[in-house]
Amino acid sequence: MVRGFQSGIVAQQGLIAHGRGEAFDYLFGETTPKSSRLATKAAVALLLGARNPVISINGNTAALVPQDIVKLARSVPAVLEVNLFHRSLARERRIASLLKRNGADQVLGLEAKARMRIRGVASPRRSVDAHGIGNADVVLIPLEDGDRAEALRKAGKAVIAIDLNPMSRTSRSANVTIVDNIIRAVPELLRITLRMKPLSKSRLSAIVSNFDNGKNLGKAMQDMIHYMQGWEA
Amino acid sequence: MVRGFQSGIVAQQGLIAHGRGEAFDYLFGETTPKSSRLATKAAVALLLGARNPVISINGNTAALVPQDIVKLARSVPAVLEVNLFHRSLARERRIASLLKRNGADQVLGLEAKARMRIRGVASPRRSVDAHGIGNADVVLIPLEDGDRAEALRKAGKAVIAIDLNPMSRTSRSANVTIVDNIIRAVPELLRITLRMKPLSKSRLSAIVSNFDNGKNLGKAMQDMIHYMQGWEA
Repeated sequence: MVRGFQSGIVAQQGLIAHGRGEAFDYLFGETTPKSSRLATKAAVALLLGARNPVISINGNTAALVPQDIVKLARSVPAVLEVNLFHRSLARERRIASLLKRNGADQVLGLEAKARMRIRGVASPRRSVDAHGIGNADVVLIPLEDGDRAEALRKAGKAVIAIDLNPMSRTSRSANVTIVDNIIRAVPELLRITLRMKPLSKSRLSAIVSNFDNGKNLGKAMQDMIHYMQGWEA
Repeated sequence: MVRGFQSGIVAQQGLIAHGRGEAFDYLFGETTPKSSRLATKAAVALLLGARNPVISINGNTAALVPQDIVKLARSVPAVLEVNLFHRSLARERRIASLLKRNGADQVLGLEAKARMRIRGVASPRRSVDAHGIGNADVVLIPLEDGDRAEALRKAGKAVIAIDLNPMSRTSRSANVTIVDNIIRAVPELLRITLRMKPLSKSRLSAIVSNFDNGKNLGKAMQDMIHYMQGWEA
């Protein structure tokens, strides 16, 4: 992360956000909680069943899993769009170029012409690419803030979040929340995508309907509480 | 914190560490847990009963509570020593100058001549001022790492930590751990110091002997677990 910061990929606030994630990861004993497996399957079912799936990329995501996130986009296939909380054209370009060095054909989010606005998000974060998130039915937002997650939901999109805090607004407002460290979650998404690709649309949509995000977040909370109770003894 | 970083007070790793603290603070509902009141009294009893109390200052502490930490040092009175995890002479000087602008008479830790080493800590963090931490019987280490906390204990010093993670090695190895956000903990330390100053040495030492840090950390864990259980419902 510090390297990502020094090379202008990660924002200062991204370092603080990363620390918040580290603390929650610690509370899961730095392992993938069981609850996240169900969420990963539901997320893959959403992505594979989507008309226009988009993966939204910020600085931390690009710094932590540049190769795996590109592989995931290719295997779905889904569109990659750079979308920053703390916008800067230079940083957007560096992130896009990092993704391309890792095998991405196309990266949206950089063309001023293509920008449109989503309602309910304070500027400049409301700006999205009309051909990317603007046109998406399913959006994967790794490490996103609550305002944006809620606005995407209000705009009628199905939202998949990767967030280590099961109590966050992002986690609570997403359709599917994977409570796990992104460095474990994205490789797992990739593995499950390759395995679930042969499934029919109706099978995928049954997996999505059977998934209850609120209940699953409750399980993630239980995992954290158990870890802490183990410590106490 | 971002301002502190931009002005060269806070290290990049300090931003990540701050994020970790934010996450734990969130798990206490961003309020001072009850358990920290007992710890604060025990900490003040240690400081007021000490022969040579020293407050160790790093970048995050200087950025977050520059004025209150100087007031605390004056009221005990205790010596201030700049002691960085990620050392740089320029940053040490900026921190010392920030403390002086906030009323500190003397700030140790900058003179190369006065340096000595404590055992059991990887270089360069083992370097301390012979007239400061080197000579201290009680050291307050806000926001310190586990290696240093353990080494100070091994060197025979009584250690007071301020750490929002009750499971950290720092928290576990200190004699007294205040599990609270430093921006609330230091003003509270100052308030209790002014109130406890009239107490006799024997009264202070009784408060210290009656304090059980392990038990108190268990209470802090309970506070976090209760907060999370409340969320789940």
